[in-house]
Amino acid sequence: MERSSFADFSCSISRTLEVVGEWWTLLILRDLFLGFERFDEIQRNLGLASNVLTARLKRLLEQGIVERHTDLQDKRVWRYTLTEQGRDLYPVLLALTAWGDKWRAPGGLKPLHIRHASCQHVSNAVPHCAICGEKMRLDNISFEAGPGGREAPGTALIGQVLRQHKPGKPEK
Amino acid sequence: MERSSFADFSCSISRTLEVVGEWWTLLILRDLFLGFERFDEIQRNLGLASNVLTARLKRLLEQGIVERHTDLQDKRVWRYTLTEQGRDLYPVLLALTAWGDKWRAPGGLKPLHIRHASCQHVSNAVPHCAICGEKMRLDNISFEAGPGGREAPGTALIGQVLRQHKPGKPEK
Repeated sequence: MERSSFADFSCSISRTLEVVGEWWTLLILRDLFLGFERFDEIQRNLGLASNVLTARLKRLLEQGIVERHTDLQDKRVWRYTLTEQGRDLYPVLLALTAWGDKWRAPGGLKPLHIRHASCQHVSNAVPHCAICGEKMRLDNISFEAGPGGREAPGTALIGQVLRQHKPGKPEK
Repeated sequence: MERSSFADFSCSISRTLEVVGEWWTLLILRDLFLGFERFDEIQRNLGLASNVLTARLKRLLEQGIVERHTDLQDKRVWRYTLTEQGRDLYPVLLALTAWGDKWRAPGGLKPLHIRHASCQHVSNAVPHCAICGEKMRLDNISFEAGPGGREAPGTALIGQVLRQHKPGKPEK
């Protein structure tokens, strides 16, 4: 029963992990965000086997996260860049960074600084509401069954739990 | 050269993935955030093999992300809950959810709704700056070498690339 895909789970976390959840994939995306474009650069930076990098990039190309074009100076070389879908993953990387900076940086020394141009400070991301702009904290958000939910592997019991946990809340 | 750990990489993304990056782990955390506490509930919800769930929970316990205590009604049963470190991962799950809701929800039907109590709307998270509170977008953040950076596998070339960067513009 070891599953090799989350693609059929009715869950947006699962579906995102289906695209970016493989070992190495988020670090490859990190490198693309940092401006690495060449296979050999990414491989040297990460120190991973070329067959693994090939497989991960192939999947990211298939999923529409990455696109490639030939190098203008050397036609034998591919350059990999993020598509709109790919660039839209930056909140995931910012969230992973913030947690690692807070909980896994020895001596509090951050490996990388993220500077926010609006305030000029080295900072990290926190989640705010896309609608009202105020902070989203665990104590001011709640979860409700959505129209795309299903009772199936991956989410077999979630519907029940959501109905039990929020008896007073309107379900939409 | 297939690596089985990112723990020694000087990168907060890698260090976070070392804790939550294994297949299934983020979905187990999702279930804990949704209020599942019992091994058998999580197993039934996800439909995963018990040896895999055992291994993932063991690692989360060792890493201080999850704690367990015996059920008050049935002493043979463990209840698993998130620690402070674990709860602090909610921005990662919100970011994964937002991307999946936007890019992988067939018909735009979200599997789960996140309601923000402050504004009462069903919403998703976007990253804001922890210091000034304004939005963090790809075009208003820049990356700089931090004091905890190292030139080693995982981040072998990042230092060079960051030094070449002009703030706000990924320069090749």
